[in-house]
Amino acid sequence: MEPFNDNYFMKQALIEADIAFQEGEIPIGAIIVSEGHIIGKGHNRTECLNDVTAHAEMQAITAAAETLGGKYLNNCTLYVTVEPCSMCAGALGWSQISKVVYGTGDNKRGFTNISPKALHPKTEITAGVLEEQCKEMMDHFFKTKRG
Amino acid sequence: MEPFNDNYFMKQALIEADIAFQEGEIPIGAIIVSEGHIIGKGHNRTECLNDVTAHAEMQAITAAAETLGGKYLNNCTLYVTVEPCSMCAGALGWSQISKVVYGTGDNKRGFTNISPKALHPKTEITAGVLEEQCKEMMDHFFKTKRG
Repeated sequence: MEPFNDNYFMKQALIEADIAFQEGEIPIGAIIVSEGHIIGKGHNRTECLNDVTAHAEMQAITAAAETLGGKYLNNCTLYVTVEPCSMCAGALGWSQISKVVYGTGDNKRGFTNISPKALHPKTEITAGVLEEQCKEMMDHFFKTKRG
Repeated sequence: MEPFNDNYFMKQALIEADIAFQEGEIPIGAIIVSEGHIIGKGHNRTECLNDVTAHAEMQAITAAAETLGGKYLNNCTLYVTVEPCSMCAGALGWSQISKVVYGTGDNKRGFTNISPKALHPKTEITAGVLEEQCKEMMDHFFKTKRG
């Protein structure tokens, strides 16, 4: 049986990213885990909802808060295939989430460049989990789009 | 007849903030204007929705995109009673909104301190419109809460 580690949970985020890909969306997926259980999932839906706020992380945060019945995500970990942007890092900051794990970086829009102080100061960050797979999914999408 | 200027539209944002106040929420309101028409409104709903993403600006962005039938808010202006946070500034950045007008600043969580690069570089910013009224509403709320 596969252990419930960072790779396992990032694979679940990649499954979410693939749903976005199939829907013609930029393929980014996110899940939120509490005590070994997935309590929220999301994938990018900005095109189908015509809404710039519909990033994978935002959907996952809303879903996790719904599951918990409370808006704070202390003791939770977010797994997301691509480095969060300022908006998502700001939302994660408000949620007081304990840990953020991402796959591939985003030099242009990622929070580590644009908004390094957006997360809560106590939030742990791990980068590069299944980085190649997360990056390949993005590259494949943009290659397809550009014909 | 009152002219349709920044003060007029900020008053409409204050009406939204007052709705939040009446609902026991931190009283922040926002509206989005396109060609002199209000195309989206929002007030803070983080408590009633149990959702950290439910800021006034986010609600207004989603509503405006719904009205327009498209996710980009070029040629639109956001009026918000309090300086946007990183999350909201990031969302406004993605929306490519033309102008952001806010009432009172937020030294602790406002984007100008935390995420000055989150907005689109072409977005104009105007601060301090009806600043006293916007600040008073916040002060009144926190005074009431702290008994």
